Amino acid sequence: MHESLEIHAEGNVTSPKGFLAGGEHVGIRRDWEKLDLALLYSEQPCTVAAMFTTNNLKAAPVLITQEHLKDWKAQGVIVNSGCANCATGKQGWENAIKMAQLAGEKFGIDPHDVIVASTGVIGPPQLPMDKIEWGVNEIEVTPNGGLDFAHAIMTTDTRPKYIAVKHTSGWKIGGVVKGVGMIHPNMATMLCFMTSDAPVEQSFLQETLKDAVDASFHMIDIDSDTSTNDMAVIMANGVNGGDTITAEHPDAPAFREAMDIVCKHLARSMVEDAEGGTKVIEVLVEGAATYEGARKAAREIVRSPGVKTAMYGHDPNFGRILAAIGNSGARFDLDRVELYFRTADGGDLCLFRDGAPADFERARAKACLLPREIHVRVNLGLGDESATAWGSDLTEEFVRLNSLYTT
Amino acid sequence: MHESLEIHAEGNVTSPKGFLAGGEHVGIRRDWEKLDLALLYSEQPCTVAAMFTTNNLKAAPVLITQEHLKDWKAQGVIVNSGCANCATGKQGWENAIKMAQLAGEKFGIDPHDVIVASTGVIGPPQLPMDKIEWGVNEIEVTPNGGLDFAHAIMTTDTRPKYIAVKHTSGWKIGGVVKGVGMIHPNMATMLCFMTSDAPVEQSFLQETLKDAVDASFHMIDIDSDTSTNDMAVIMANGVNGGDTITAEHPDAPAFREAMDIVCKHLARSMVEDAEGGTKVIEVLVEGAATYEGARKAAREIVRSPGVKTAMYGHDPNFGRILAAIGNSGARFDLDRVELYFRTADGGDLCLFRDGAPADFERARAKACLLPREIHVRVNLGLGDESATAWGSDLTEEFVRLNSLYTT
Repeated sequence: MHESLEIHAEGNVTSPKGFLAGGEHVGIRRDWEKLDLALLYSEQPCTVAAMFTTNNLKAAPVLITQEHLKDWKAQGVIVNSGCANCATGKQGWENAIKMAQLAGEKFGIDPHDVIVASTGVIGPPQLPMDKIEWGVNEIEVTPNGGLDFAHAIMTTDTRPKYIAVKHTSGWKIGGVVKGVGMIHPNMATMLCFMTSDAPVEQSFLQETLKDAVDASFHMIDIDSDTSTNDMAVIMANGVNGGDTITAEHPDAPAFREAMDIVCKHLARSMVEDAEGGTKVIEVLVEGAATYEGARKAAREIVRSPGVKTAMYGHDPNFGRILAAIGNSGARFDLDRVELYFRTADGGDLCLFRDGAPADFERARAKACLLPREIHVRVNLGLGDESATAWGSDLTEEFVRLNSLYTT
Repeated sequence: MHESLEIHAEGNVTSPKGFLAGGEHVGIRRDWEKLDLALLYSEQPCTVAAMFTTNNLKAAPVLITQEHLKDWKAQGVIVNSGCANCATGKQGWENAIKMAQLAGEKFGIDPHDVIVASTGVIGPPQLPMDKIEWGVNEIEVTPNGGLDFAHAIMTTDTRPKYIAVKHTSGWKIGGVVKGVGMIHPNMATMLCFMTSDAPVEQSFLQETLKDAVDASFHMIDIDSDTSTNDMAVIMANGVNGGDTITAEHPDAPAFREAMDIVCKHLARSMVEDAEGGTKVIEVLVEGAATYEGARKAAREIVRSPGVKTAMYGHDPNFGRILAAIGNSGARFDLDRVELYFRTADGGDLCLFRDGAPADFERARAKACLLPREIHVRVNLGLGDESATAWGSDLTEEFVRLNSLYTT
């Protein structure tokens, strides 16, 4: 990590200066007291960068927000959990616009400067707009409200997910995320809100966001479904002052790294909280011919249900890992592939090399799969490119959670 | 069905004239008495059409068979279950060649006219060649041996899968298949062996096979993994006599349809026997702009773990179906989509129409998901193309089977 950076593990979207947030239980979700409506407000207008779901079915709030962000400016955010407001017809569309209007009125800003997001069940019922109206009036946004915000956007998440990184020159990046199911982000991610009090040029901000998302949210898999409501947003309000950060600014490398740290931490925390998950499977693919090949191979390994179930059962069935690489589309020559599990003492156990299974004890390989965190390393032996992906395992509990309840 | 065709539900690869088969327990699989070695022999040389796995990791027997089929001729087949002979190095390669030699010697034919196939665990241990040699000598191939053949190629399958179709002019097509896990065939299928006693031109045979496989094995999904050992083969020995069937032959349409019936029956029987499966989900996508779009949408619906778990839990969560269509890459306009479940009396229950949820009773929708066979129909409202896909559900039992045992 760059020596100018400092991680604040308890930080979140209100850690950067000039951001206020809050959350409330308004009753969109039936569970008593679970916060289900969230507001975020910046005292100054923000430069924004954003990425959205690539699912061709996009929820009303995603489409409205894309419209509002055409000028890459925003000052407020309104989010509900408990209803995705997706496939909800004309009424759903009007409700998403109404949410922006309510937040705009509360903050005295143009509704077009409000980002709208929803998460929960796709389809009926419609959002209870009377409850949302009541909630918007009720919520008090404060400089300490980031944690409530993180709670209010949760659906089947069991805990809020947040972090902040501070630079020695004073600026920070803070972020929160939600999402533990329907997670196979594709050119997008789950609901992820990040803030910064640095002044940042929009094109640099967008480029930094894209690179960080590609190496984090795009490299995780829980259940290989891509949601209809994905959104990753960073709002930079410049309240910390100083020159606008561009690609040439001396802080640019640190800003890139700070964003990378925030996104990777949040992505990983989603996998750690995966629906029914008992494992975090970290896969490093190195020696690839291309970066894209390394990414594809790493991602396909953590996506494969065969690999996920084997890891859950502590089964060192490395054939499924090789089959996943073969399916990934990455360039690959079996005779050059080396495959390792990390042992408890941090060493390497080789399972496959020189085109054939290595001579290893099955019990030792099994022992590598017992911890909650499993490390798989594959060297494709073709070049210098590498990529890391993170996946959850596939368990009976995942099936139970996804079959017994509408989520 | 063409009036010249007749289905033989108990038929298999030895139903067409001039084919002999048999199977034996030789001890590759540890379970006592499970047949694990199979032989198929044609009294006359055969014209062959074949399709193979598109996984970049191909098992030794797949590579050897591709080599042997360069002239599209074969006369014998040897198959083992219990070991995929994949990622087994130089030894595995030599073992696959040895299998062809053993079968060639037994039948007095060139080893290059032998198709070799293996299925089971990827990786170690190596095939027990002494047991295989013993078995090849032991097996008696007979005109009634097709059922033993179907049994011997099974792995986690709970029952053999077979069918034959007979034409009024005397020729037949018979087929057997295995595969209930690692099933998301891609330009290939599981181990599927088909025979015909019709004389058939190779190019017509290959074209007919491709079309039938595209509409059957390529349209099923159990667990979205593509195996390393997939192979679909049809051997036509011409023993029935008559003119060679080409695209212009009067029997050509009936031959196409017979192949289509055999492939669809076998594909469907795989889904019915899916690891841990409790449902067969049949999805018809109609009104698509293109055939490819209809195929993609139907296939993605049966692949989605969200849809699979909802169906398992009888949860009429149609939002997951719409999200899967959105992910499929098919052209799609939500305002034109209509979505239906089939009711117990064969009627249609509309869940989504005109861009919004239809007015339906949740209990009635749930009732549509109670039977073992579930029918979903989606009209995309864009054109005239349609496609059908079949998928299993995702259950705790699938997870248990795939995590507790190396398969």
